[in-house]
Amino acid sequence: MSYSAINLAEKFGKFSDHWSPRVIAEMNDYQFKLAKIKDVFVWHRHADTDEVFIVLEGAMKIELPDGVVALEAGEMFVVPKGIEHKPSAERECHIMLVEPRGVVNTGECEGELTAENDVWV
Amino acid sequence: MSYSAINLAEKFGKFSDHWSPRVIAEMNDYQFKLAKIKDVFVWHRHADTDEVFIVLEGAMKIELPDGVVALEAGEMFVVPKGIEHKPSAERECHIMLVEPRGVVNTGECEGELTAENDVWV
Repeated sequence: MSYSAINLAEKFGKFSDHWSPRVIAEMNDYQFKLAKIKDVFVWHRHADTDEVFIVLEGAMKIELPDGVVALEAGEMFVVPKGIEHKPSAERECHIMLVEPRGVVNTGECEGELTAENDVWV
Repeated sequence: MSYSAINLAEKFGKFSDHWSPRVIAEMNDYQFKLAKIKDVFVWHRHADTDEVFIVLEGAMKIELPDGVVALEAGEMFVVPKGIEHKPSAERECHIMLVEPRGVVNTGECEGELTAENDVWV
């Protein structure tokens, strides 16, 4: 049998919209998602889980209640459970998110930036 | 307050031994680990969890009971729970592992390649 690797660049080539994470893999009840981001997202939080950001291309910032973290390609950050955060990117940035299945991108702040959940690419 | 990104290259610069994963971050009860690998690991399995391999630099293979998957930088693979696997790399390869806290690198096959668990870098 031939198994296939999941190629991140190939997956990124299959969508172009911003702030709309695509699932590429599952590990137990966790999902690995890719997203293209640009400009400023909404302040939100995930009451029940930490959330991992890994920057694959470009640069982004994550504002937090008492500071800000700047991330470049090859860097990651774990937003702690329940902590409000506001991601942003001056130029398009490619990221990987890791979080439990079912997490909505805008957390408790549903609005126009709320993306459909569990969309695979 | 100033938050710090976790820089993967900086973390890789802090160790040189092979097949000895270092923890760099936790998300809920999961850990993100970096490892340098070279040559052939032992066949083993993790009875209770899937295991994610993400290749950051170089190339590796994962043998499975009925096939093999080849991974290059920018590719990932999820070894399903309970499935025997044997990682290998012809040249040194840098990988990220994602799995629950407490997973031992050799699974049920303790031996000379069994690394100390939960070692942070």
